[in-house]
Amino acid sequence: MSTRAPLLLTPGPLTTSARTRQAMMMDWGSWDTGFNQLTASVCEQLLTIINGAASHHCVPLQGSGTFAVEAAIGTLVPRNGKVLVLINGAYGQRLAKICAVLGRSYSTFQTAEDQPTTADDVNRLLRDDPSFTHVALIHCETSTGILNPLPDIAQVVARHGKRLIIDAMSSFGALPIDASQVPFDALIAASGKCLEGVPGMGFVFAHKAALAQAEGNCHSLAMDLHDQHAYMAKTGQWRFTPPTHVVAALHEALLQYNEEGGLSARHARYADNCQALLDGMAALGLRSFLPAAIQAPIIVTFHAPRDARYRFKDFYERVKAKGFILYPGKLTQVETFRVGCIGCVDRSGMQAAVDAVAQVLREMEVLDI
Amino acid sequence: MSTRAPLLLTPGPLTTSARTRQAMMMDWGSWDTGFNQLTASVCEQLLTIINGAASHHCVPLQGSGTFAVEAAIGTLVPRNGKVLVLINGAYGQRLAKICAVLGRSYSTFQTAEDQPTTADDVNRLLRDDPSFTHVALIHCETSTGILNPLPDIAQVVARHGKRLIIDAMSSFGALPIDASQVPFDALIAASGKCLEGVPGMGFVFAHKAALAQAEGNCHSLAMDLHDQHAYMAKTGQWRFTPPTHVVAALHEALLQYNEEGGLSARHARYADNCQALLDGMAALGLRSFLPAAIQAPIIVTFHAPRDARYRFKDFYERVKAKGFILYPGKLTQVETFRVGCIGCVDRSGMQAAVDAVAQVLREMEVLDI
Repeated sequence: MSTRAPLLLTPGPLTTSARTRQAMMMDWGSWDTGFNQLTASVCEQLLTIINGAASHHCVPLQGSGTFAVEAAIGTLVPRNGKVLVLINGAYGQRLAKICAVLGRSYSTFQTAEDQPTTADDVNRLLRDDPSFTHVALIHCETSTGILNPLPDIAQVVARHGKRLIIDAMSSFGALPIDASQVPFDALIAASGKCLEGVPGMGFVFAHKAALAQAEGNCHSLAMDLHDQHAYMAKTGQWRFTPPTHVVAALHEALLQYNEEGGLSARHARYADNCQALLDGMAALGLRSFLPAAIQAPIIVTFHAPRDARYRFKDFYERVKAKGFILYPGKLTQVETFRVGCIGCVDRSGMQAAVDAVAQVLREMEVLDI
Repeated sequence: MSTRAPLLLTPGPLTTSARTRQAMMMDWGSWDTGFNQLTASVCEQLLTIINGAASHHCVPLQGSGTFAVEAAIGTLVPRNGKVLVLINGAYGQRLAKICAVLGRSYSTFQTAEDQPTTADDVNRLLRDDPSFTHVALIHCETSTGILNPLPDIAQVVARHGKRLIIDAMSSFGALPIDASQVPFDALIAASGKCLEGVPGMGFVFAHKAALAQAEGNCHSLAMDLHDQHAYMAKTGQWRFTPPTHVVAALHEALLQYNEEGGLSARHARYADNCQALLDGMAALGLRSFLPAAIQAPIIVTFHAPRDARYRFKDFYERVKAKGFILYPGKLTQVETFRVGCIGCVDRSGMQAAVDAVAQVLREMEVLDI
């Protein structure tokens, strides 16, 4: 098993299908109509997933997901705007850091890493400080795998007449979000997550009216989503050189997404992966950090074994040698490790990973779990 | 021939080798040591090309080349700096636009699109306005293919005690630049140009002392090269999700670059491609826009035929049907088209492209060339 490429059980980059990778075997001219059609098809398919074609534009952007998040804040929050940043993990912290670097006013509201933000919290915060113009939220916080109650929060934000920016990096494509039911100005995700493409581009679903008003807001030339969209609408092309092979891979991944049965099928597979993982690890005595009710089927955080013979680095290398790449924890107070449930993998793959973990714990003589 | 993927005779994305594309058939974990080693090897090989390991850091960045150019200006020009932007084409204009959007003071010096900036010009400009802190230059301006005299300009900039930022997007890897002879603070290029990787990442050779002083300059979180470098130096990892497949392709492309014989061999092949193109097109009566002395062997601009039966769109589609993708002109005053000399192609490929152009002109009954 160790002679094959290991299975990536991480929050992304993740394991893609051979068919998706095969789509990168062709070089595309970025000016050519064939490639423009590929881009248009990607955007159309993405909008369909959130039922957003009537209300939102899909604006793709070169770079990682964080580039797209920064672009959304820089483009859609006016320079005199003020952002309420909801935090329960590292990606929420990153939203606040982006606001700070960009010079946008902001306040943070932080809950514990195992506590979702609630709609009541947001209602109180917006009532107490009417100067907020925007609310920024992580849908599924990859630090732990916790799910925040997006639909409820979105309704409260809209009721206050404020605008919502959602980092849905690790949930988009697997957890349902309906743009006709959930009001937002921007929702951001990327190619290399639940869509099972390769990393290298992000995309922002930007509310049409909000984007139209955003000219001149952005702090950056390359990240200006207003200009990116305006140029693409006019020419069919990306403003600057696109990652052509990444776009082709995402296009192929979306075809497979639809063939699999779209969001409900993707969600069902990941939920099944997650359950197989939780059951298998529980049988080994490994405890998950979050209660089931707030655990998204994307990535699971496990408490590290208590045994002094456990060392993450050693554990990681041994599990990798058996064909599975795990992910380190990201909590500061508690020692943990993480296992992703997403990518081109099913229940049998998750069970094989659990078996590998069991063998490694025996090899390491980790008894006190 | 039209059933194969067409040959891309553009300034990039360009035709890559099958071996380079094949390197994208594996999924890498971005946290894994195997991938960190790939990144380190890429940076080391890039630094070797400019003989810059002693003086410069190589800082890779997600996104297109323009992202890396913006990152270099944003990170290395302090907020109270002032940039002299040297312009003879669209990419020079883009440098000025970046300075404007980022709120850096700048002045432009513009020559005609067939006139290189001279060291004398720069000497006079820096003497007349001592408030400049930086000079920004396009090495080979892709709008036309013109080569600006980088070594002479760099010496003048250094003599004035100013700092130089070089956009070497379309020259790096094919035209010699020696960091021990040519003083600069930043030189920027990208994966999908003369190194024959796929597009999706840029890189900045940043002078070590200049980068060390650049903390807090940057207007952007994602584009902060100081932070990008500091994090990579500490952890071996990219700060945000890297385009893993693009990095793997660049690594494989660099191995082939060295096997071919490095810069001198790459330069010789492109020069031979360029000569075959110029000779073949001249035999058809097609005139190149630039005189030979300032024509870089990267991309050639040709005057469009005068004949009323010539239409670029029709010409382009017919040549594409024969297996070659050309590039539109980018000049505002003169009707032109462009043909790239770079990518995984040799003299015989260029001659086949010329033959296709000849056939298409006959088919279109374009007589007055």
